[in-house]
Amino acid sequence: MPLTPDHPLLDGRTGTSSLVRAYRGDRPERTPVWFMRQAGRSLPEYRELRVGTQMLEACLTPELASEITLQPVRRHGVDAAIFFSDIVIPARLAGADVEIVPGTGPVFANPIRTAQDVAALRPLEPGALDPIREAVARTVAELGSTPLIGFAGAPFTLASYLVEGGPSKDQQRTRALMYTEPQLWATLLNWCADVAGEFLVAQVEAGASAVQLFDSWVGSLSEQQYVRRVAPHSKRVFSHLRGFDVPKVHFGLGGGEFLRAMHGIGADVMGVDWRIPLDLAEERLGGGVPLQGNIDPALLGAPWRILEAHVEDVLARGLSAPGHVVNLGHGVPPDTDPDVLTRIVELVHDR
Amino acid sequence: MPLTPDHPLLDGRTGTSSLVRAYRGDRPERTPVWFMRQAGRSLPEYRELRVGTQMLEACLTPELASEITLQPVRRHGVDAAIFFSDIVIPARLAGADVEIVPGTGPVFANPIRTAQDVAALRPLEPGALDPIREAVARTVAELGSTPLIGFAGAPFTLASYLVEGGPSKDQQRTRALMYTEPQLWATLLNWCADVAGEFLVAQVEAGASAVQLFDSWVGSLSEQQYVRRVAPHSKRVFSHLRGFDVPKVHFGLGGGEFLRAMHGIGADVMGVDWRIPLDLAEERLGGGVPLQGNIDPALLGAPWRILEAHVEDVLARGLSAPGHVVNLGHGVPPDTDPDVLTRIVELVHDR
Repeated sequence: MPLTPDHPLLDGRTGTSSLVRAYRGDRPERTPVWFMRQAGRSLPEYRELRVGTQMLEACLTPELASEITLQPVRRHGVDAAIFFSDIVIPARLAGADVEIVPGTGPVFANPIRTAQDVAALRPLEPGALDPIREAVARTVAELGSTPLIGFAGAPFTLASYLVEGGPSKDQQRTRALMYTEPQLWATLLNWCADVAGEFLVAQVEAGASAVQLFDSWVGSLSEQQYVRRVAPHSKRVFSHLRGFDVPKVHFGLGGGEFLRAMHGIGADVMGVDWRIPLDLAEERLGGGVPLQGNIDPALLGAPWRILEAHVEDVLARGLSAPGHVVNLGHGVPPDTDPDVLTRIVELVHDR
Repeated sequence: MPLTPDHPLLDGRTGTSSLVRAYRGDRPERTPVWFMRQAGRSLPEYRELRVGTQMLEACLTPELASEITLQPVRRHGVDAAIFFSDIVIPARLAGADVEIVPGTGPVFANPIRTAQDVAALRPLEPGALDPIREAVARTVAELGSTPLIGFAGAPFTLASYLVEGGPSKDQQRTRALMYTEPQLWATLLNWCADVAGEFLVAQVEAGASAVQLFDSWVGSLSEQQYVRRVAPHSKRVFSHLRGFDVPKVHFGLGGGEFLRAMHGIGADVMGVDWRIPLDLAEERLGGGVPLQGNIDPALLGAPWRILEAHVEDVLARGLSAPGHVVNLGHGVPPDTDPDVLTRIVELVHDR
């Protein structure tokens, strides 16, 4: 499916933005910068807006999700908005009983562990994604020339939450299922891929100018496991976007060992965590892949001269790639001083 | 300091054991096998013994620590005992106010974050390690020809607990201190290295035939950070053992990226987690380093034929190294069926 002519990428709004140019391997005058989890708890205006509203309810209320998505763009002057949502939202929209428990994370009332559990998973109903479309459309209307990046969690990470029933240290139950029941595993991951893929399609159709697929837990896998049991399903997510000419970013925490395999799922741009420098990432990818990253979030609380030197180092190492979008190597920690993020944006833009 | 002639390594008890031979790069007839965290919650006899006793109290009561250390040797017929203890024990013996909170992990009443906090850290008093010496001596007297492996947490991991005040997802506060206050960091890590080193010395003097240094959180570091800010202090731990001719094993979770740097701290044997196959580890180490590992703990609950094939694969890949001690790629999960561990020991011994 092609984008409609009134899509921001085609109607002159975002097609030549610094973000989209860098994602396509170009070097705009100003290096673009945004921050994973820029929308959220680090901002006082977010904490104020969320009072009395549960996390997933906020994600599914278009006015709220849109306002939260816009807040960091207004405050920091970042070069992209990232759609405010959660990895478990597609599962929730498909009927899963899940809540975000503050201090814990997503908790599923009925973890998915048996053939019956998997067989009971339903596809997304027509209209299920309407609140997402509406939130994105509202956001894009406000953003003007700033591109919105669509958001989804990758099948392995979504499946980990479903199987474990919540967050876990190293996804042992999930990986056990992967080894023990390869057929069931494939069915589960395809379901995850399809709901995540449709979630992204809804965002792109409603005006997102790029998408990012997050695989938060991929670092608990060996490369062999990843290639055989996970990558084909991550690829399936992106196959839903076939025909939409939007940049596709892929990021996985702790996946530095198999960046190349992660890129191989059909990503245009690779996000890199703080564990490997961008020049090494470029080398592992064999050259030619635009990169996003990778300021160590642990440095956000350091004295400015130390953080500044680190950002300069990230910029210098990013020169090895055809395009570079500055970001953190993981999400913004909740206790971050937001002024520090604004200062990083100014530093990157002034270079 | 040399070992005394009545040490198990020298008096004929453990010097030619399969474990010590494999650690020294030999291939004994039977490949040795033991399991990280084999002493502990997976065993009903352990859970029974621990009723009414706090974790750290159990570690510091010689009869209990010794009995717990011996339990898995009796039950599984493993080729080594690992001294039952905890990474925070040396800090506790040096006066830190720390408890293990069930379901959470170690919690320090006063996290170490300022120059004053670090300055207030005291060395181990003479006699502080007496309960450790007594527990080890009791254990070794029972073990006969089965070697005991001494245990300590590496400085980065111990410092992470001290700085964060407990377990944390990616040690951001710890890494922030590392970047921000390099002098303070070095002082703190040297303190950790010295208490861990003396802890190991006490175990070796009391009869341990090898030592293993665990760096549980090292996977949150880049190689550059590791080499510059962590490795010199891990090396300092082993420098306490200078003159003792005991095999030194080093294991770090998620440290596959910089195995070679980890080996460079003075380890004789490298433990490998489940993320990289042993033949790749051998290649990264440049050959010649005995390896320990690396059955994926996630497979312990899989049907036997699947687990068996995985163990066979681990054995086959381990052939690339000069010596191989079979182990898991991480600790035994608490919900493991202990019979599965016994069956793995039989399988490895029957090959």
